[in-house]
Amino acid sequence: ARPRVGYFYTGKSGDQLLSEKLQKILVSDYQSRPVVVNENVSVYDAIVTMFLEDVGTLFVVDQNSILAGVLSRKDLLRASLGNQELSALPVNIIMTRMPNITVCRKEDLLTDVAMKLIDRQIDAIPVIRETEAGFEVIGRITKTSITRAFVSLGNAE
Amino acid sequence: ARPRVGYFYTGKSGDQLLSEKLQKILVSDYQSRPVVVNENVSVYDAIVTMFLEDVGTLFVVDQNSILAGVLSRKDLLRASLGNQELSALPVNIIMTRMPNITVCRKEDLLTDVAMKLIDRQIDAIPVIRETEAGFEVIGRITKTSITRAFVSLGNAE
Repeated sequence: ARPRVGYFYTGKSGDQLLSEKLQKILVSDYQSRPVVVNENVSVYDAIVTMFLEDVGTLFVVDQNSILAGVLSRKDLLRASLGNQELSALPVNIIMTRMPNITVCRKEDLLTDVAMKLIDRQIDAIPVIRETEAGFEVIGRITKTSITRAFVSLGNAE
Repeated sequence: ARPRVGYFYTGKSGDQLLSEKLQKILVSDYQSRPVVVNENVSVYDAIVTMFLEDVGTLFVVDQNSILAGVLSRKDLLRASLGNQELSALPVNIIMTRMPNITVCRKEDLLTDVAMKLIDRQIDAIPVIRETEAGFEVIGRITKTSITRAFVSLGNAE
């Protein structure tokens, strides 16, 4: 008794269809461009870069362009309160560093990465590609990426 | 020809079901507690409050507990770079103030509020109740709230 109205009747509930649809959204569908700084730049320069690029998280790379750390707005705000000379303080003193960085890959499910953002209470996760030298940063997923995905779902016809 | 398997066949596609499901999620389902400061506190105290409460946005209220302004981490970071004496600088100098504040109500659709977060490039929107004196702040919706909603959708059975 399959209805002849152009849709297959699958016997699935709305929640199941929804869940299945979400299982098809990948990191690569919503990742944005990463903004990186070298690990030798000063905290002052990192803050300026954050404003110029208008991002909430910077990824720190070494001389081989390999992921070395992450800097959040919160890290930079904390450092700026510390009464230190920000232009003399290198970012590698205050950054979160490998192996304590949560990363993802472009073929990961966006819902899994969203769950990591919530569980680890972070704002952004670098999208990486594994190389022999370490992780190369090729994108970023932030709570803004997830919010864009949520809005797109709501606008489905 | 309605299939007898416990579900109504509605003739709707997965995208339509999804969209309809999202149209039922309200601000009140995901709002969190607002963190407010008085408009007379210093920028230094606001930054300390932001760290203690671990939030990315503070709402500023007047002596009648009515919404007067919004302070983002970005506003506070900018002020902290300005070489000013942060404990002598009141927040009402640097805050975004009414009527330039985007607000929402607890009965609004979460997708509409998510769209406002994206369109206006902001991190948080106060949930308000209208009173004769102005807007009383009763909650907040942030990109974290939207990310939580997205994760919940993905976990539907």
